[in-house]
Amino acid sequence: MIENIKPMDIEKRSFEIITEMLGGRIFPPEEEPVIKRAIHTTADFDYADNLVFSKNAVKKGLSALKAGCDIVTDTQMAKAGINKSILEKLGGRVHCFMSDADVAEEAKMRGVTRAYVSMERGAKIEKPCIFAIGNAPTALIRLRELLDAGEIEPALIIGVPVGFVNVVESKELIISSNAPYIVARGQKGGSNVAAAIVNALLYQIMR
Amino acid sequence: MIENIKPMDIEKRSFEIITEMLGGRIFPPEEEPVIKRAIHTTADFDYADNLVFSKNAVKKGLSALKAGCDIVTDTQMAKAGINKSILEKLGGRVHCFMSDADVAEEAKMRGVTRAYVSMERGAKIEKPCIFAIGNAPTALIRLRELLDAGEIEPALIIGVPVGFVNVVESKELIISSNAPYIVARGQKGGSNVAAAIVNALLYQIMR
Repeated sequence: MIENIKPMDIEKRSFEIITEMLGGRIFPPEEEPVIKRAIHTTADFDYADNLVFSKNAVKKGLSALKAGCDIVTDTQMAKAGINKSILEKLGGRVHCFMSDADVAEEAKMRGVTRAYVSMERGAKIEKPCIFAIGNAPTALIRLRELLDAGEIEPALIIGVPVGFVNVVESKELIISSNAPYIVARGQKGGSNVAAAIVNALLYQIMR
Repeated sequence: MIENIKPMDIEKRSFEIITEMLGGRIFPPEEEPVIKRAIHTTADFDYADNLVFSKNAVKKGLSALKAGCDIVTDTQMAKAGINKSILEKLGGRVHCFMSDADVAEEAKMRGVTRAYVSMERGAKIEKPCIFAIGNAPTALIRLRELLDAGEIEPALIIGVPVGFVNVVESKELIISSNAPYIVARGQKGGSNVAAAIVNALLYQIMR
């Protein structure tokens, strides 16, 4: 039976259902909207368990966004999914270097992924950035190298690539770094989850 | 331990791992690439069970794409994720009406969702179309109404909205219609899954 519900009420009702389905589970208040929005985007309750946060990760992300930080992502899909109108009101924009011709060329020449080269492009942006990675473990691998070399100081790393080759390991590289992070431990994640986590932060600032 | 693997081999290795993790499960040969790509995109093996196909759905989708059909989708994210370079070589393009100002205005006036109005825009396209729905159950509800009124004859409906309000029911409306469909039964799905299913079809034609 189709429920008769106003368009503006659908999301509110969805979050109520997610809360019901989570039973009485309690999350840290600042992490809860992130966890619930990841579930909202996937209908996959594994995100209640696999999302891990460094200390004050959400607070640091919110501060950076309020101060107008940019976002670097590894897919056009995540870029499409991020609420750019709120981000732009705050003074930020989204960068995705994956489709740039010079990135593809350089990656081919060096025998690395485009995501690997894209992170180097992101590292050159001269303002604070959140890195939101939903696809490529090689992006996280390069971010860890850049962190270790002292070449970046990300405001936050959202590390949620999905998949089966080096995905689990690349996330652990971020968890064991000194950077603030929100990571979906294990194989799960995706561009949609990366965008959802960014939006969960943005919607806490403005709607 | 990070596996040293060439960029071009990552996807191949991923599909081998998916095949291993599926154990000895056998799928109909034409459905198998669709199921495995949905898993590849989500790392969620529920898609091995929840994807349902009308008779010859994949064959019909492939024929339509080879003949240059267009694709109508309900999110910019799915549009971003679909391999447009292959689609364009075949003579097709992707339409997403969700961000059109006149769609938003009309939806507000009528008290319906933008997705509902977007499907009406899609129905007016004067060539065969595949509808790839990854977000809005109201898109599937409107498609069923348009089907019942004889106002559309979709080449294929990819019905994979995600969520908690009217999602399960809207998918059943498509399964019980006469249209060719690929549907993710239940709450799961998403724009990424919609794009993955389209790409699974495209990659069978050209890579």
